[in-house]
Amino acid sequence: MAITQTFNDVNDDARNGAYSTPAQPAELDASKVTITVAREFKPVPPASELVFGQVMTDHMMVVHYDPVNGWSAPEIKPYGPLSIDPASSCLQYATNVFEGMKAYAGPDGRPRLFRPDMNMKRMQISAARVALPPFDTAELLKLIHKLVALDARWIPTVKGHSLYIRPTIIGTRDSLGVAASDRATLYVILCPTGPFFRTGARPVNLLAVHDHVRAWPGGTGGYKLALNYAPTFKPQQHAAKLGYDQCLWLLGEKITEAGAMNFFVVVRRDDGDLDVITPPLDGTILPGITRASTLDLIRAHPSRTTLPGLSPETLLHAVERELTISQLAAWAEEGRLLEAFTVGTAVVVAAVGRIGHDGKDIVLPAHEGALGAVARALYERITDIQEGRFEWENWSVPCA
Amino acid sequence: MAITQTFNDVNDDARNGAYSTPAQPAELDASKVTITVAREFKPVPPASELVFGQVMTDHMMVVHYDPVNGWSAPEIKPYGPLSIDPASSCLQYATNVFEGMKAYAGPDGRPRLFRPDMNMKRMQISAARVALPPFDTAELLKLIHKLVALDARWIPTVKGHSLYIRPTIIGTRDSLGVAASDRATLYVILCPTGPFFRTGARPVNLLAVHDHVRAWPGGTGGYKLALNYAPTFKPQQHAAKLGYDQCLWLLGEKITEAGAMNFFVVVRRDDGDLDVITPPLDGTILPGITRASTLDLIRAHPSRTTLPGLSPETLLHAVERELTISQLAAWAEEGRLLEAFTVGTAVVVAAVGRIGHDGKDIVLPAHEGALGAVARALYERITDIQEGRFEWENWSVPCA
Repeated sequence: MAITQTFNDVNDDARNGAYSTPAQPAELDASKVTITVAREFKPVPPASELVFGQVMTDHMMVVHYDPVNGWSAPEIKPYGPLSIDPASSCLQYATNVFEGMKAYAGPDGRPRLFRPDMNMKRMQISAARVALPPFDTAELLKLIHKLVALDARWIPTVKGHSLYIRPTIIGTRDSLGVAASDRATLYVILCPTGPFFRTGARPVNLLAVHDHVRAWPGGTGGYKLALNYAPTFKPQQHAAKLGYDQCLWLLGEKITEAGAMNFFVVVRRDDGDLDVITPPLDGTILPGITRASTLDLIRAHPSRTTLPGLSPETLLHAVERELTISQLAAWAEEGRLLEAFTVGTAVVVAAVGRIGHDGKDIVLPAHEGALGAVARALYERITDIQEGRFEWENWSVPCA
Repeated sequence: MAITQTFNDVNDDARNGAYSTPAQPAELDASKVTITVAREFKPVPPASELVFGQVMTDHMMVVHYDPVNGWSAPEIKPYGPLSIDPASSCLQYATNVFEGMKAYAGPDGRPRLFRPDMNMKRMQISAARVALPPFDTAELLKLIHKLVALDARWIPTVKGHSLYIRPTIIGTRDSLGVAASDRATLYVILCPTGPFFRTGARPVNLLAVHDHVRAWPGGTGGYKLALNYAPTFKPQQHAAKLGYDQCLWLLGEKITEAGAMNFFVVVRRDDGDLDVITPPLDGTILPGITRASTLDLIRAHPSRTTLPGLSPETLLHAVERELTISQLAAWAEEGRLLEAFTVGTAVVVAAVGRIGHDGKDIVLPAHEGALGAVARALYERITDIQEGRFEWENWSVPCA
């Protein structure tokens, strides 16, 4: 025992550092951040002139991963272009993941984030789906807090306005071999944004599309990947030519999503209650954070809270079930289809006006100010929570 | 008539240039190219040390598009990183298209390309699918000729070796709005390459995968898009862990592709003839140029040419039809399944050794040197044409 050493002993010694072992690749560590403040600050456009996604703030956060060193020291620095090898995985094989979040100006002046843990978790899952390296999401969130704090002057203080946050991770392996990227760049950029539809509260018109399929069983529709978006642009251009705003994506008869948003309908039941229905998370549907929040709030009414403008006598049922386009047409015909609306981080809640299908339109009832009673209640309550006017289950998190 | 001018007259005048009209965006024009030669040339690795996709040549071609100016003057310049805005469409929404081609050293020393028109046409179609701007493919091909000529010293002269060419077009619209990219960068990079499988002529083992689905009807599997590749890396890692080289992609029971290659089987018929079968181009299959060439050569044997090593009495039938995994297993059971092989630009032709499915392996007959008679005949003939040793229907095009 004193003389011979078993393999287990050797392994124990190695674990205890008795032998020199190669350094472990570093974890993502927000405390290592270096901050370089821009020499000149850009002018912040007036809130009324903001167009979604066009004007970026003064700074960005960037951190790099390689398999030997792990995550580098994060940098917060002036917004500017990335230097990317032309052979990089992100350009050649679309190993790109993003998230969409928003920072809001709270009544106390402090910036607030909305359920940021959910974005962090989804980003981690999406990155794993395209074999990008894992990262400590709590550290990424700390970096987002720091970046938002630095660029806080960009957060519009007008109701319904916010600072959109776009965390992104891209594969940077610079070899053309068709294989997972063992290198990555993780970055966060910010842009101030107003209400998604500039034209004001008008309903969105959708064209049901079945010849192009956004997501399928065994595909990637349930992940937030860059690659889910490029194939939608051509069908979207076609829909626009026909006078529709967005595509309603079908998989056969089944409704999946609308544009880049989750889709809901409100249907009157025989007993007078209202079903608020959205397709289930079967792998073809993005697990939207506004979608989850919508379902949670519907379930809370009226037992735990009364949604604004709705009577406590209005009983709502949150239903996750398959929705077909012909079922929708039938409900509309019967006068049961009270509302259709889309939800997402950028749009929050938007009313649907009509849905083109097979040369005809399913026309939704018109509502003053576009949103029906349920969609309006959700819009008001969600933005009240986001902007810190209503406290609800710690969904709104003040920036540190 | 002499006094009043109708709207039609005004339009006619505008068409005739009577009013000043904005300049047309410029077309892609190879004659405008500027060439900047690298100050230092990199050492060319010995052919025996080449690994696919890892070492890039000295130069690259880059040209940019914007909707006002159209295509810029193309640049051939030293290989180096691209400067890309973090909000760019190529990083956020995967608006990225690429091609794979090869330049070969001909017996006369001149570089040759293999059916380059087919790559150019496919690239144009793929770019349109993700709403990227069109470009004159003849001009792009001229630029590729110029770039290959400049870096011709990189073309390995060893049989089975070549200079791999990677034309790429990426969307560079720098706005986060989910919409088509109206800006683009088109570039071409080159890397010398040896036989795809470094281990020599050993068969490829495939794992049939049905839980992850590569392509779907109404999806993008029939286009050469970056976004078709990222989702394959995780299943590929799983296959590798189980001891397989690549995935055999299933759609339900149907076989679609193998790894990033088209898939063929050779089946003995009751009359003794051989069916050479591959799935049809139903939108889930990449229209491979080696695939098309394989079908053409099978159809030409023995009436128009005798494929090397095959007797003119061996009658081959090129068949594009649905292939199911259970049909494959049944043919193997009956002793009719003589060969399975994959084809693609990088690999040319590779033998399949076994196919894992539902915990069992479908084992293909072993052949000396890995390739069966049909696969070997195709490999020999295609590389003979590519490398200029055999003239066939102008498939091999000398560089200007």
